[in-house]
This record gives sequence, structure tokens and C-alpha cells, in this order.
Amino acid sequence: MSNTVKNLVLIGYGGMGTRHLQRLQSVKEINVKGVYDIKRVKREEAKRAGYRVYSTFENVLLDKDVDIILIATPNDSHKDIAIEALKNDKHVICEKPVTLSVSDFEEVLKVAKKYNKCFMVDQNRRWDENFNMIKKIYNNHAIGDVYEIRNYVQGSRGIPKDWRQLKEKGGGMVYDWCVHLLDRILWLNNDVKLESLYANLSYSLGHNVDDGFEVTLLFENGLKVLLGVGTSNFIKLPEWYMVGSTGTMEIEDFDLNGKYVTLEGELTKDTVPIEAGAGFTKTMAPRNDGSTQEHELPKVNVDVRDFYRNFVNWIDGKEEPIVKNSEVMRTMKVINEIFKSSDNNEVIKF
Amino acid sequence: MSNTVKNLVLIGYGGMGTRHLQRLQSVKEINVKGVYDIKRVKREEAKRAGYRVYSTFENVLLDKDVDIILIATPNDSHKDIAIEALKNDKHVICEKPVTLSVSDFEEVLKVAKKYNKCFMVDQNRRWDENFNMIKKIYNNHAIGDVYEIRNYVQGSRGIPKDWRQLKEKGGGMVYDWCVHLLDRILWLNNDVKLESLYANLSYSLGHNVDDGFEVTLLFENGLKVLLGVGTSNFIKLPEWYMVGSTGTMEIEDFDLNGKYVTLEGELTKDTVPIEAGAGFTKTMAPRNDGSTQEHELPKVNVDVRDFYRNFVNWIDGKEEPIVKNSEVMRTMKVINEIFKSSDNNEVIKF
Repeated sequence: MSNTVKNLVLIGYGGMGTRHLQRLQSVKEINVKGVYDIKRVKREEAKRAGYRVYSTFENVLLDKDVDIILIATPNDSHKDIAIEALKNDKHVICEKPVTLSVSDFEEVLKVAKKYNKCFMVDQNRRWDENFNMIKKIYNNHAIGDVYEIRNYVQGSRGIPKDWRQLKEKGGGMVYDWCVHLLDRILWLNNDVKLESLYANLSYSLGHNVDDGFEVTLLFENGLKVLLGVGTSNFIKLPEWYMVGSTGTMEIEDFDLNGKYVTLEGELTKDTVPIEAGAGFTKTMAPRNDGSTQEHELPKVNVDVRDFYRNFVNWIDGKEEPIVKNSEVMRTMKVINEIFKSSDNNEVIKF
Repeated sequence: MSNTVKNLVLIGYGGMGTRHLQRLQSVKEINVKGVYDIKRVKREEAKRAGYRVYSTFENVLLDKDVDIILIATPNDSHKDIAIEALKNDKHVICEKPVTLSVSDFEEVLKVAKKYNKCFMVDQNRRWDENFNMIKKIYNNHAIGDVYEIRNYVQGSRGIPKDWRQLKEKGGGMVYDWCVHLLDRILWLNNDVKLESLYANLSYSLGHNVDDGFEVTLLFENGLKVLLGVGTSNFIKLPEWYMVGSTGTMEIEDFDLNGKYVTLEGELTKDTVPIEAGAGFTKTMAPRNDGSTQEHELPKVNVDVRDFYRNFVNWIDGKEEPIVKNSEVMRTMKVINEIFKSSDNNEVIKF
């Protein structure tokens, strides 16, 4: 039995909103019924692009044909829009970060439960190809048991000159990016206890929101994870770097340059010291003796449009949600501790 | 007035010891008078290599012609050899780490003072070319004010199968490498207060000494430094990575592959969002508009043999020591806090 096509209205015709609309063009389970934006200029832009435009948010809520409201507005407005939508019998897809506090998110979930509606957060970067390559190797142990993951996303253009520079709007890089990086790592380790974190936020660009951060997570199974973002980095660190007991994996960037290398033989055999800089070293001597093997990055098959399809299937009772609200809640709580750790320069233990 | 050539005897004919002898061949201020090693097989090896070999350590001490004793033995034996040498009127060059405790080092310094002898620790990696390139750019502000330095040294051969695997001998990577990395960073910031550190030691190879570590240092001037060592990394992170207010510098390795890139213009101007992975991003959009400039690594002129020459000049009262014992003491004290931070998983504040 096939699903009924669901009607969706986008709230917030900005960068992320228009991107959703592009993607939804090829999601046959969803029909984009219209658009609303609080700004008249944006509404006019949407009209010119051929969308049906609602003149008020209330009109969206009153439209009985609307099944799903997709919220892609600045972070501080998600909560109120979501609650209104849910109360008016709409399912809701919400941009990340879902809200700016745990209690706000709890309120939203209470309303969703009361009105028996589906509410899902767009953690779209779970569908990044490079993350899925890391996930595959992490789970199939192709480099042994993994004990270290580094995930750094760096730009060199500062923070965009919009609400992202404003604290009260939920700006800053922790809300913008850590929410992605943390969500994925916690998802990858759903069953593993997070033991501690240490975070350090950067304010080097002089805004009152963080322009970058670094977080060290220690998990109960011995895994150490470093997550970092920078916005004035003119040379980038590798985006992904993962070390296991028998190999190392690196993915440089979104363009999927990278490889993984495995040890074929014994770790400490036949080491010959080398001259290196002003010293010599046995420990840091290279392996050029055929005792390692280089592999291409694994193939993965991911399609971010599965996010929308999964949402529709959840509404229709055919699938569990991929992005569970309990997972988003866990991430939100850890985000709070990240701010606390950095503010107090202390390790947070869970 | 030229110096008298000083006679030196090496104690410990191992890897580092023989490397000292090679270097001393072209240091005209020092004459290698002989060698002693506690192991007969090593003494025979030294004899075959053409060195005069002492049959006991006492014979070295009794030889009035010996001016300098160079200690290149396992870490736990430095203290006793140093004290005996100083008491017998010898100047001493000692391998790093100088001792395994602050109080041991204090004892050594007390004896050096009492007998009015020069005692200097071989912090040879202050002469690494890549470090000196970083130092030059750090000090001349070619990438603006630096707020982040990362220095990672990684090998893939485990810990060498000798005393370096033994805790009681002062094995492990903190003593072997952190002593270098920390010494340099503290030297670079001699006048800057270290505010805090957070350290995480790795024991993934199953020895009872650490096989790697990661340390985050926060300085009073806003500088964040990450130091790391790994011994089973089959792909290496860049050895040096430095971020300043107007540029970024990277040196990949000891072979000096690297560059620095500076911003020529405004940070946040004309940003166009890009598709990246399963999302799109304005913040992480690349700069391909000629608004940055790439530079070759700066030229530096360093010669590790200046270490020995400086020592002789110090003896002769012509120069201050480059490696000051107060600096080594500072490093030792911080090393203690690194172990403590990792053991307790806590931030140490100074």
C-alpha cells in the first residue's frame, strides 16, 4: 500500500529553506504546497520563484490541507513556531539546533505527544558521504578497534554576517556546527556511555558568539573523540582522522580525498632509527618496507532525501524515525555541558 | 682569546650517545676523549669504532683531563651519574628527560652549584628546522597574532623494544617526546603565564607506560597549544599547524613540506554558499577569489652543534646557557601535572 502524498509548507525562505525545496523536488512522497516568511521581501522572492506564498503564518496553520510544516528560521524562533504548528495538527520537521535550551525542547515534545504528531529534527549531516565512510570502517573494524576519531570542519570566512553572529538568535559555531558533529558521534556510539568532555570555545574574531571550538570526548569503551571547528583557517586540517588498533583512516575534505592504511605484520619489528630534524628517532621511523597496505575509501550509498522519506513513513507508521528525539535531547544536554566546560575551563564528567 | 679545547667522555654508547659522537667530530671546541658503557658488549663496540674505552665509571671520574661528561644512558640513571660527575669536578651535559622527578633535579642542581660546575640538558629539538620556522613566523607576526599552535609527532612502530617500554626506567612517550614538545613551546613563551593544561595519555598498546598523549595548554595571552604523540599512526597528521589572526601555517613533516597562507582583504566579504556533503554551507565556503596569498616556508639557519659550542662558551664565561636549568625545571613541573591531569581526567590550573 503506497503512502498518500503529504503536503508541506516551508517556514523561512532563507539559505537552508530554499535548499530543502530543491531537494524536495525529487521526493515524490512530499508535495511542496507553499512557503511563508516573516519578511515581505522573502515572500516576494518565493513568489517570483513560483511558489504559492501564504501572507501570514496563521493562514498556514488554518490550511487543513497542510500535513507538514518545515521550520527553517533562525534558531531562537523554532520553539514557538513548532508549538503552534503541532497544536494546529501539523507534523513538523525542524532545522537544527532544535531549540536553545533543553526545557524548550521538552515543551515542544510535550505538545507533540499531546497532539500525537511527528516531530523530527533535520540532522542532515548524518547523510554526509565522508561521515558514512568513517561509520562503515568504524563498524566493520577494517582498521581494528578504533580508539581515536578527529573531526574538524574549518572555513576561512569568519561567521556569516547575519543572525549567526548574534547570541540571542542562537548564533555561534557550537549551535551551527557542533550540533552536527556531536549528533553524528553520539549516534555512532548510541550504546556507549560518554564519560567526560572538555571544551574550549574561541572568541578570536571579537563577536559575542563563539567563532570556533574544540571538544574532547572520552567514552567508556576507550574511544577518544576530538571535534573542532574554525572560521579563520586558511589551511585546513584533515576533516576526518581515525586511528584503530591495526590501521589509520583519513578523509581530507567534503570532496572525499582520502584513504586508509592497514598494518600487515608486526608493529615493532625491524625498526631502524632515522635522522629527523635536529635529532634522531627510532619511534618515529617511517614504514617503507611493505609492511602496510593502502586502501581506497570504502564505497557508500547515501541519499539525504531518505530523511524526508523516513519522516513520511514514520507519519504513516511504517518506519521508526531515523533521527530520534531522544538522540537530539542527548545532544542538546551535551551541548549545554560544552558551554559550561569552556566557561569554567573544567572537565565535565557524566 | 680562543677557548681551550675541552675533553669530553660519553657515558652510554647507545643510539643517542653515538649520535652525539658523530656530531662532535665537527665541533672543534670539544675533543672526545673516550667512552664508557656499563655493558661490556657496548664497550667492545666502542673500542672497535676506534674510541678510547674506560673500563669503569670510576676511572672516568679519576681522569683529571676530563672536562665534560656527557650522559646518554636510560632516564632513571641520569641523576646518580650526574651527581658523581659534578662531585668529581666535571661539567655535565645530560640527555633529556633530565631526571624522573623535580626533587631529583633539584638535588643535581644543588651539587652543580656547590661544585661550581656547568650542567646543561640536551634539549636538542630546539634546533629542529621546522620548529625554528614556526618560531620565526610566531615572533615576526607574518600570520598576525597567533592564537593556536598544534604540534603532533606520530610514528607507526610502537614503542622501541628496550627500556623505553619500562616505567621504572622512565619509559613512555611523555618522557621521550613531550619533554621536547613542551620545552619548545614553553621556551617560545618564556614570559607568558601558562594558565591551565588538560592531558590525556594513551595506553592502547598494552604497555604499562604511555604510548602516546595529547595535551591542551592555555596561556594567559589567549594562545592555545595542542601537543600530541602517537606510536601506531599509519597516516600522519601535519606535524605543525599554526593559526593567527591573518593567516595559517602548516609544516607537514621533518622534510619541511609546508607553507603559510595569509589573508589579503576582508574576512567576511562576498561569501557564496556551497554544497558540501549532505548540506550546504556559507561558513565553510572556500576562498578561490585571490583574496589569500600563499607563501613558501621562511628560511632559517640552525645548527644543532651550536648546543655544544654554547656549553663550552658557558664554561668559559663567554655566554649564557641557551638551555637554562630554570627552563628545564619549569618543563619538569608541567610534566608532573600532565601525568596528574591524565590520571584524574581533570584540568590543572596554574
